Amino acid sequence: MKVELSALSPTPQVYLARLAYLLLVLFENMGRAVTTAPTTAAKSTLSGAASELLDAHHAVVAELVALGADPTDAMEPYHRELDDFQRRTQGADWYEILVTCYLTAGFLSDFYAGLAGGLPKALGARMTDKLQLAVGEHVLVELLRAGIDQNSRLASRLALWGRRLVGDTMLVAQDAIRVDGQLPTEERIEPVFTELVSEHTRRMDALGLTA
Amino acid sequence: MKVELSALSPTPQVYLARLAYLLLVLFENMGRAVTTAPTTAAKSTLSGAASELLDAHHAVVAELVALGADPTDAMEPYHRELDDFQRRTQGADWYEILVTCYLTAGFLSDFYAGLAGGLPKALGARMTDKLQLAVGEHVLVELLRAGIDQNSRLASRLALWGRRLVGDTMLVAQDAIRVDGQLPTEERIEPVFTELVSEHTRRMDALGLTA
Repeated sequence: MKVELSALSPTPQVYLARLAYLLLVLFENMGRAVTTAPTTAAKSTLSGAASELLDAHHAVVAELVALGADPTDAMEPYHRELDDFQRRTQGADWYEILVTCYLTAGFLSDFYAGLAGGLPKALGARMTDKLQLAVGEHVLVELLRAGIDQNSRLASRLALWGRRLVGDTMLVAQDAIRVDGQLPTEERIEPVFTELVSEHTRRMDALGLTA
Repeated sequence: MKVELSALSPTPQVYLARLAYLLLVLFENMGRAVTTAPTTAAKSTLSGAASELLDAHHAVVAELVALGADPTDAMEPYHRELDDFQRRTQGADWYEILVTCYLTAGFLSDFYAGLAGGLPKALGARMTDKLQLAVGEHVLVELLRAGIDQNSRLASRLALWGRRLVGDTMLVAQDAIRVDGQLPTEERIEPVFTELVSEHTRRMDALGLTA
């Protein structure tokens, strides 16, 4: 996947600015997962996942500063679209919020790690590293499995929610590789999205849900 | 203040457990300030303040682990009371949320830094250090002043809100120094609270508000 995606990378500044704002949105989602957590244990482990996303956001902002950009100005063009994405994927309760955190951060960190292959080499390596959101993935799978394993109605509701999320998430990824508002030709992007979707399916499988 | 407060410190484990959960609550408030921020600039600077609180929470949790405690079990006895505090001090809009973040974190970090004088020396020094929430204070004063300076009705509404917050915040501090459910004698706690309240007044002054 990385080979195909890297050919679609925007400029470093555009890549970083969009990713910086996106990580803020993903962090906010995780913040809502912390706030709505029903137990102290869940609250505490989710706060580690929130840290991971905030650290990644700050690292990306630092890269923008290193390029001489003003991070706020740089992020500004993306806030409306990504705020909309956030609203559409908010989730109705704690479990749906967890699924949102898990699937959207998983899909989009894979996607941005793939795009990183098209950045200047050292920068690309730092980004790939920062996009390993291992704490979050681990914590979310554990909390979700604990809920799903004892409640089959929850399982089918979350499967539905996961299917809905993938569409909205894919649009965010597509918007990131538009050039002058146009998507690259289908032959170029199809293999990329096929692979991203198969990773999404693997993530659903890890919850025991059908994608 | 530190002299009087240090004599009222609970055991290290009780101190750390309550403070750990409190920092999680203060972080959640800041997370809501990030989410509801009206501009990209505000969102981005507030995320730095959220990091500071999360780092402090994780540092305190690490101290609990170092003492051999299970952090979740240790925090559990405090969650109900501190969740109530959070609900009562939530704020009706972004500016009230900012005032909550500013005043409650300011008051309670002063308070816990004072109590730290009664902990084993090295632990106390680490806690005093972690409780310097400098990023948050700076960012919040700047955002609040910008709003207040151009809107006198906002100023009087926030002055009112600040006065209400101090009562709820003081109760949280008092609960942290109860022994067997009883507060220490008035002579012992009065000078402590007099000084905490004068710091609160200084914080209101920094916004141009009357305490």
